[in-house]
Amino acid sequence: MSVSDIIPVLDYVGTFAFAISGALAAARKQFDLFGGIFLGFVTAIGGGTLRDIMLNQPVAWLHDMWYFYLIVGAVAFTFIARKTIEKYSKTLFLFDTIGISVFTIIGMQKGLIMNISPMLAVMMGILTAVFGGIVRDLMCVDIPLIFRKEIYATACLLGGLVYLLLLYCNCPDLLAVIIAAIVIFITRTLSVMKNWSLPRFK
Amino acid sequence: MSVSDIIPVLDYVGTFAFAISGALAAARKQFDLFGGIFLGFVTAIGGGTLRDIMLNQPVAWLHDMWYFYLIVGAVAFTFIARKTIEKYSKTLFLFDTIGISVFTIIGMQKGLIMNISPMLAVMMGILTAVFGGIVRDLMCVDIPLIFRKEIYATACLLGGLVYLLLLYCNCPDLLAVIIAAIVIFITRTLSVMKNWSLPRFK
Amino acid sequence: MSVSDIIPVLDYVGTFAFAISGALAAARKQFDLFGGIFLGFVTAIGGGTLRDIMLNQPVAWLHDMWYFYLIVGAVAFTFIARKTIEKYSKTLFLFDTIGISVFTIIGMQKGLIMNISPMLAVMMGILTAVFGGIVRDLMCVDIPLIFRKEIYATACLLGGLVYLLLLYCNCPDLLAVIIAAIVIFITRTLSVMKNWSLPRFK
Repeated sequence: MSVSDIIPVLDYVGTFAFAISGALAAARKQFDLFGGIFLGFVTAIGGGTLRDIMLNQPVAWLHDMWYFYLIVGAVAFTFIARKTIEKYSKTLFLFDTIGISVFTIIGMQKGLIMNISPMLAVMMGILTAVFGGIVRDLMCVDIPLIFRKEIYATACLLGGLVYLLLLYCNCPDLLAVIIAAIVIFITRTLSVMKNWSLPRFK
Repeated sequence: MSVSDIIPVLDYVGTFAFAISGALAAARKQFDLFGGIFLGFVTAIGGGTLRDIMLNQPVAWLHDMWYFYLIVGAVAFTFIARKTIEKYSKTLFLFDTIGISVFTIIGMQKGLIMNISPMLAVMMGILTAVFGGIVRDLMCVDIPLIFRKEIYATACLLGGLVYLLLLYCNCPDLLAVIIAAIVIFITRTLSVMKNWSLPRFK
Repeated sequence: MSVSDIIPVLDYVGTFAFAISGALAAARKQFDLFGGIFLGFVTAIGGGTLRDIMLNQPVAWLHDMWYFYLIVGAVAFTFIARKTIEKYSKTLFLFDTIGISVFTIIGMQKGLIMNISPMLAVMMGILTAVFGGIVRDLMCVDIPLIFRKEIYATACLLGGLVYLLLLYCNCPDLLAVIIAAIVIFITRTLSVMKNWSLPRFK
């Protein structure tokens, strides 16, 4: 396995973690199995789907069955082993943070390939990482957590800007990807540990 | 009229019933006429629109004015004769169930034509049948009923799998369509009569 | 500057006003800066984005950076000068009404170019003007105001029909645009002043 094969694998890890987060939200609201599967899908592929549609690209999860099996598996796993999952919340946080990092990079790359402005490519990256969670919360009729409490949007923004800067300086793509993903990963982890937050409207 | 002409007609019947269900929700929330028309459209064409966009197909209702007139008509009818409609709730249930059956089949067919995996085509079918109702509930700021109480997603899934199985066994398409629609119709009717439901998250 | 150059400029004015309306909603709900930017974007470009996706057109704001800078600027301005903005609520109403008028016309023109039925082109125009505000309210988990209280959908409908009628009578396009926009502007202003409203469901 070469280093460039790692991105799809990490994408799957993130998809699995996001689907679990959707299923956990469904469980908290006492949804049934259909609601859990629906919310698992929405959380895991919502961001990527909106991005692909806006960029007029084929919707990724419709052309790679790994997503389907991972999401259905994650929801089934949550359904039968919710207690265990909640015990390993740190592992879940790890997977989730991997997902956010990789989703941001993948979203940016898709934007850059479509020749939109670099700043909008960063937005596509952030959207890929955050939109699924926003729709998950809205489908539970809750105000999206991310609108009030910094969770990871700033980390995605920072990583996205670092990635752009590195490409601009002719850094090899793979190295830029790795550095940007690490920046997102560390910023997000630190912001949760240190309880950092963005200023609120007064 | 040949048998294959029946599907579009049943599609219109379902569209009409779904638009009434949207207008009834608007009435319950004391929306005005604009809100009623908006909710009628969202409920009736929401699922098909999302499916067409994800499959990169032309959005069906933008190219066939029948949908427009049926939906506006259904909302106007609900506006002036709501009491009468509520008296004929069994007829409405009948039309609605026809709609669900036909929407599932049409969604699956569109997916299969676009060469996505058969399981994803089944998902497109279910989405066509359920997504409009989900958005209707969300626009009323209610948790979608279908996330908590089995209404018809399982019936659509069952009918979809039967359809796939029949095609796999070289059953003529029209016959497969009819059998699958009947399976959905009967499963849904039974599940309502017998109060069947999916397991919930504990 | 020729008269036809005015439409893009008014489009930007409307975008700015809509983004402020999104940021004000975010402020009312005590969102943080990320929530404000997200809501500013959703309100300002939500309607146009849905329209472009349904018509299978390139998404406008991804190909013109003016939108990005105007929206980010509007949110930042609201963040630091909310009190001042609230003092100039009449100016904001003016900009907002300009936005609605221009958004309706632009949406209709895009629909007509894509050769959909004129009535559906009017719907695309209305959608362009109203959908951003609907999603803004839903993201705040409020029932969209426009479903209950006439704000501007009827004004857009009236202006749209006038525009169609004028084109049908071979009125030069630019003149038709100006008259339709004035009709929307005046109808909306009057409906707010006179407290007009659509009939509600009983």
